[in-house]
Amino acid sequence: MKLNIHASSSYELSADTFTLLMVEPALVGPAHRVREENLVTTPTPFSELWTDTFGNPQRRLLAPAGPFRYDFKATIETEPNREIPDDAAEHPPKDIPADAMVYTLPSRYCQSDLLSRVALDEFGGLPPGGRRVKAIAAWLYQHVEYRYGTTDSMTSAYDTVTQRAGVCRDFAHLTIAFCRALGIPARYVSGYCLGLDPPDFHGYAQAYLGGAWYNVDSTFQGVRRALVPIAVGRDAADVAMTTFFGAGTFREQTVEVREAGGGASGG
Amino acid sequence: MKLNIHASSSYELSADTFTLLMVEPALVGPAHRVREENLVTTPTPFSELWTDTFGNPQRRLLAPAGPFRYDFKATIETEPNREIPDDAAEHPPKDIPADAMVYTLPSRYCQSDLLSRVALDEFGGLPPGGRRVKAIAAWLYQHVEYRYGTTDSMTSAYDTVTQRAGVCRDFAHLTIAFCRALGIPARYVSGYCLGLDPPDFHGYAQAYLGGAWYNVDSTFQGVRRALVPIAVGRDAADVAMTTFFGAGTFREQTVEVREAGGGASGG
Amino acid sequence: MKLNIHASSSYELSADTFTLLMVEPALVGPAHRVREENLVTTPTPFSELWTDTFGNPQRRLLAPAGPFRYDFKATIETEPNREIPDDAAEHPPKDIPADAMVYTLPSRYCQSDLLSRVALDEFGGLPPGGRRVKAIAAWLYQHVEYRYGTTDSMTSAYDTVTQRAGVCRDFAHLTIAFCRALGIPARYVSGYCLGLDPPDFHGYAQAYLGGAWYNVDSTFQGVRRALVPIAVGRDAADVAMTTFFGAGTFREQTVEVREAGGGASGG
Amino acid sequence: MKLNIHASSSYELSADTFTLLMVEPALVGPAHRVREENLVTTPTPFSELWTDTFGNPQRRLLAPAGPFRYDFKATIETEPNREIPDDAAEHPPKDIPADAMVYTLPSRYCQSDLLSRVALDEFGGLPPGGRRVKAIAAWLYQHVEYRYGTTDSMTSAYDTVTQRAGVCRDFAHLTIAFCRALGIPARYVSGYCLGLDPPDFHGYAQAYLGGAWYNVDSTFQGVRRALVPIAVGRDAADVAMTTFFGAGTFREQTVEVREAGGGASGG
Repeated sequence: MKLNIHASSSYELSADTFTLLMVEPALVGPAHRVREENLVTTPTPFSELWTDTFGNPQRRLLAPAGPFRYDFKATIETEPNREIPDDAAEHPPKDIPADAMVYTLPSRYCQSDLLSRVALDEFGGLPPGGRRVKAIAAWLYQHVEYRYGTTDSMTSAYDTVTQRAGVCRDFAHLTIAFCRALGIPARYVSGYCLGLDPPDFHGYAQAYLGGAWYNVDSTFQGVRRALVPIAVGRDAADVAMTTFFGAGTFREQTVEVREAGGGASGG
Repeated sequence: MKLNIHASSSYELSADTFTLLMVEPALVGPAHRVREENLVTTPTPFSELWTDTFGNPQRRLLAPAGPFRYDFKATIETEPNREIPDDAAEHPPKDIPADAMVYTLPSRYCQSDLLSRVALDEFGGLPPGGRRVKAIAAWLYQHVEYRYGTTDSMTSAYDTVTQRAGVCRDFAHLTIAFCRALGIPARYVSGYCLGLDPPDFHGYAQAYLGGAWYNVDSTFQGVRRALVPIAVGRDAADVAMTTFFGAGTFREQTVEVREAGGGASGG
Repeated sequence: MKLNIHASSSYELSADTFTLLMVEPALVGPAHRVREENLVTTPTPFSELWTDTFGNPQRRLLAPAGPFRYDFKATIETEPNREIPDDAAEHPPKDIPADAMVYTLPSRYCQSDLLSRVALDEFGGLPPGGRRVKAIAAWLYQHVEYRYGTTDSMTSAYDTVTQRAGVCRDFAHLTIAFCRALGIPARYVSGYCLGLDPPDFHGYAQAYLGGAWYNVDSTFQGVRRALVPIAVGRDAADVAMTTFFGAGTFREQTVEVREAGGGASGG
Repeated sequence: MKLNIHASSSYELSADTFTLLMVEPALVGPAHRVREENLVTTPTPFSELWTDTFGNPQRRLLAPAGPFRYDFKATIETEPNREIPDDAAEHPPKDIPADAMVYTLPSRYCQSDLLSRVALDEFGGLPPGGRRVKAIAAWLYQHVEYRYGTTDSMTSAYDTVTQRAGVCRDFAHLTIAFCRALGIPARYVSGYCLGLDPPDFHGYAQAYLGGAWYNVDSTFQGVRRALVPIAVGRDAADVAMTTFFGAGTFREQTVEVREAGGGASGG
């Protein structure tokens, strides 16, 4: 499937500001092949591309005071998002690779240690594997209300399991915390989603089953047609799209994900 | 039913210490009639009996430095504890009396405001009334593990709903928070319980239904034979059996509740 | 001092709604004498005046579906707000009256048990008395930023002591929690304040010293000229100005407090 | 300085258990040179040495059911622990290397986002650099009580900043959270400490200043003579000495750190 992606945001910076940008799809490989990609910042300072602890490319630049804007356009060839097979296996700990092990541990917004009993109580009796992870996603979809304005950047899985309302970030955090509490490596992904309404950046989970990372989007009943990762991390703290080390005022943002050739499906 | 109650505790106080004692059954009325009652403190200072904000008699005394002990014995004529009738009615707010209204509000250990959605999600679909309150108690009994050492005096319903382990105090707090979140007045009771194993003071909830306060003990499947209230309040913060305003070391405690005439049933 | 008070709010109710109103000044006595008082609700249902657990008069009414508005006007003769005397005495526990004792205990938004050590660390070394309570208020004024939008109705003293931003309600809760942690009875007051900018209902603390309740408003440096209490309670949970038991939409609110005869000092 | 280290622990495992061991000093380089090292597990299964996300060597093994024990002995040549120079520079964000950037982000037990204002309020006015980090450590030493039994494995910096009691792990977490809130990369280290009383494994912080990681041990007034790192991570969640994926019972533990040639200073 070929996707045309367009993301842009503009800000007003009160001083020269060191800035991290993560808007370019990462983990590009067989599943996600970039055909064309164009990132323009206005004004256009020198930028460096580094790699963070979780393997994400991170653009570092010094944005000058005044209006600042980035504009990212890409054409991506992506495999359609797969449903998790019912029999995708949970790994015994000895078979979890070293670089996935960190995703079994609790993190700022995914306190899997505190959610251990509730996870076992709700999902411990289910047979392990893909079906169980889908049961977690279905539980979230049923019991948590998607609602803007009920949470903020400090809300964590420990809150959401009780307060039962939130946005994509909160759904992902609780999904991840439940998986980790059951011993399933799970991580946070920021990415582009085809068909998201209203269009925006998206946050979702990935669970490690049968030797692969599967997408888990508990804000949606069914299977998203396409999800393109930008960055992965332990939770949303690790994958901010833009980080300004200084005072900036957000002006506006546009995110568009369209199927190329296809007509209507802009989201 | 006639009960013989015996409770005693001993302490070592490092200075003359103002002390509040609440070990004498309160709310004595048709359901609980005191036949004999004897409270001895050693040494025996002058004490005053006051009434607190929630109507509980509270003994105030100045305990001298050194060993301090109270010994309380009573014979109580009590009505057997009733099961909540399935059709005991929840009151519309306009029919909740002024002195029960305070028991609809959140408190230190029963944050019903934070548990509003989880309560509605789990119990909002059930028909209101006694059956619903019993469903709450059954949920607690099934989903929360009774286990010493998993909680402390700072644990609240907000913790227990997720951590799902605790002692009688924690069961009562979560039961109360769920009831209040549904608009049902609910309060905390410290009391004496026939058949408690191991014997101890007990904490449980009361819900206001059909014009009466009904006992709800979610640590037990079925109906306790007898529960005798010592004090009621919004949560455990309000009904401490002993409060020392100073440094004291706990030595030992005995609580016995036996059915008079009956033989073995000491708890 | 003579004050003219005018408070009104309007709502749109989607159904007949049982409603509690607390806007009329309570604790009226030598310090606050009502000269004229007029409460009009539109439409005008039958209402009852009850007294809550904390002694506040509470108006109960059934507001019909549709637009609902209350309009309260009063002329109050009030003693000017007193500064706490430096030597106002903290009471040893034995001298705290029974009805003040409940204000030494932790509550939903004033978790004095959790703040015990920080209170002792910051204020335990100061000589007890009025000067210490004023030091608490000064600490709040210096270390907590008054800022709308940083907190919500679930924010508690445990949050504010670290997050250090909030509105009058948050200042009052932390002030109260510190006082209680030191053994000083402290309660929450909703009331009318002369000179508040922008004008609004106000929330502040009262501490019990030298046999009297003193106002503590840590949002203000200096001494408010006049504070007229509407209701007191353990924290903001107990003193809501309006409680709708049903779905209502807030439309608008006006609060005016002016010195009668005086010219400009509308707040 | 030459150190002799001996650490051993024994357990009873109820089944064959996949186990992670991190007891061997990591980050071995000019500052810490291993002269001799001997790790024996009893029984002795095959083990693999992997590297985790933070660069720590991690021994993976399948421990058979029954008694399990590891015994680790090493002789380490270590540079004495350095005091942080007053003028060690804080780095502007643009000069923080990619692999240190993760240590500026909040984590499970170091919620620097929630502690932002308290950190700025307490330390924001101090000149940046080594002196400021030492001021943070001194604040901890003065305001937090070192006391066993006051915290558990779920306690975080957000708790400790208010509850002000804890053990080395809690001191490290709060130190780290304060540093990160000021923009200073800070990480958690588990390690061996010369002179610790009573002897045990140790947890402390490292802050990144002037291009180097400096040890910060806020449980101690002055400068520890020697600290040898075992593993680093975002907080204690990342650096457990032993992780059993299954049920094990702890039996006993010995940790000894002695200066070779020196006589008495066993800790």
